Amino acid sequence: MAKDDESLGASQQRVEVTRFGATSLASDDLVAVEEPLEIRLGQHVDGRLEYQAVSITMRTPGDDRELAAGFLFTEGILQHRGQVRSIRHCGRGETATNTLCVDLAPDVPVDVKRLERNFYTTSSCGVCGKTSLDALATGASGVTPPAGLGIAAEVVHGLPARVRERQRNFAGTGGLHAAALFSTAGELLDVREDVGRHNAVDKLLGARFLAGALPVREQVLFLSGRASFELLQKAVMAGVPIVCAVGAPSSLAVDAAREFGVTLLGFVRDGRFNVYAGAQRVAAA
Amino acid sequence: MAKDDESLGASQQRVEVTRFGATSLASDDLVAVEEPLEIRLGQHVDGRLEYQAVSITMRTPGDDRELAAGFLFTEGILQHRGQVRSIRHCGRGETATNTLCVDLAPDVPVDVKRLERNFYTTSSCGVCGKTSLDALATGASGVTPPAGLGIAAEVVHGLPARVRERQRNFAGTGGLHAAALFSTAGELLDVREDVGRHNAVDKLLGARFLAGALPVREQVLFLSGRASFELLQKAVMAGVPIVCAVGAPSSLAVDAAREFGVTLLGFVRDGRFNVYAGAQRVAAA
Repeated sequence: MAKDDESLGASQQRVEVTRFGATSLASDDLVAVEEPLEIRLGQHVDGRLEYQAVSITMRTPGDDRELAAGFLFTEGILQHRGQVRSIRHCGRGETATNTLCVDLAPDVPVDVKRLERNFYTTSSCGVCGKTSLDALATGASGVTPPAGLGIAAEVVHGLPARVRERQRNFAGTGGLHAAALFSTAGELLDVREDVGRHNAVDKLLGARFLAGALPVREQVLFLSGRASFELLQKAVMAGVPIVCAVGAPSSLAVDAAREFGVTLLGFVRDGRFNVYAGAQRVAAA
Repeated sequence: MAKDDESLGASQQRVEVTRFGATSLASDDLVAVEEPLEIRLGQHVDGRLEYQAVSITMRTPGDDRELAAGFLFTEGILQHRGQVRSIRHCGRGETATNTLCVDLAPDVPVDVKRLERNFYTTSSCGVCGKTSLDALATGASGVTPPAGLGIAAEVVHGLPARVRERQRNFAGTGGLHAAALFSTAGELLDVREDVGRHNAVDKLLGARFLAGALPVREQVLFLSGRASFELLQKAVMAGVPIVCAVGAPSSLAVDAAREFGVTLLGFVRDGRFNVYAGAQRVAAA
């Protein structure tokens, strides 16, 4: 199982470990790399760029530009690629790659206040799930798949194995979440990984944003873990019509899926799954 | 499997579901409840309380006071129980329990800026894992277990089953993370659950904070999922000497454990585990 350290890339790191099983054994193990990333937004003010730190997230290095683009898009700060002039690492010293500057094009108004999450609060019910859904409704471009779009149960059963085959790092470290896009015929289109499951989704959707390929009207978003409200929010923002999670959904994830017309599948593993919303898009045979 | 809805409590919710396996079947399923919680900090200014929203987190309702106390303690805002005059739900309307006011005692200075996470940045290396560790060092009370404290491998092997036995909701929904405290002899002392793994740890440590029972000098923190830097940060702040995770640790979690003298075990399941730091506290037989 030994690999050269050069072969590990930025997302894995070798550490000493003592294994306990039938016997104990000192050896090396691979762990998923976790490092902070600061995202700075550069806006034109009086003819020059002014920077504002909008997020520090713990992430696995790699696909940082996609991560930033996906984060800013799914949080409702950016709407299309033309608003961005450049995205580049802009830190100093040996960890220069832990700071990323997103330079906006001139005359792009952005509502950074959205990031403060105050938009969860309304006068009618204070802080509640309903206001979270309302806030999402004001920012979402909507889920509008072609009529008749659907996926066969047999295709769904095969998704987890296809992601495992393609996952570059999970097998090595056991510590990375994956997010993937599939066609409804089960063709794997893209996979991204991260120690944070929201980061994996941001990397995946950010790549589409940078390619000018949003909304995602006909594809399936696959999640290697559970489906929380935050992940459904990202799916809704990107227009994803079908979400398949290996783990369980939360109550607010189910509410969001039903409210915005997303088909939501959970416990997609071992030849079974549950449909929590939008069952009309799932064909049994 | 039918239960009365009254028996579900605030942490589970019944939803309609279509099950696909050998055959498809419409029925009901339980999902973990996820709702936003806003935490407001009340500070005395000119003889009256002024409130400031310091966090909105998506959490499973229940143990909200413990969640807020644990969050504020592990983020370095609060140090001991005497700084808090009261913690109470203070929202309006039907979701009044989604807002929590933490009233400080008079003359308690708090450094809310810590929450902005700017403390990850230093002039020497910008944003990097090292600064994350340095920031932790300025706030941590330190891990100082009694000399000779240790845990037997046999005890470690038994931890996951004991948590599963006691978990009130996981079996029903499959969607809740658990955090537990054990004695080094394997006695289960407390368990808390949440859709967010950081929330489960905050609830667990917040209960100790409110009981005046911190630091945790002689106990074992058990995590049902992976071990990230953020979770190790919370353990270090609370003085926890041994952390056992069912999932994989990240690189920065391993760094934090080694820097602060925490014994860190990962992949604690199926009669095996790996020791990533502090192996001197683990006895093979």
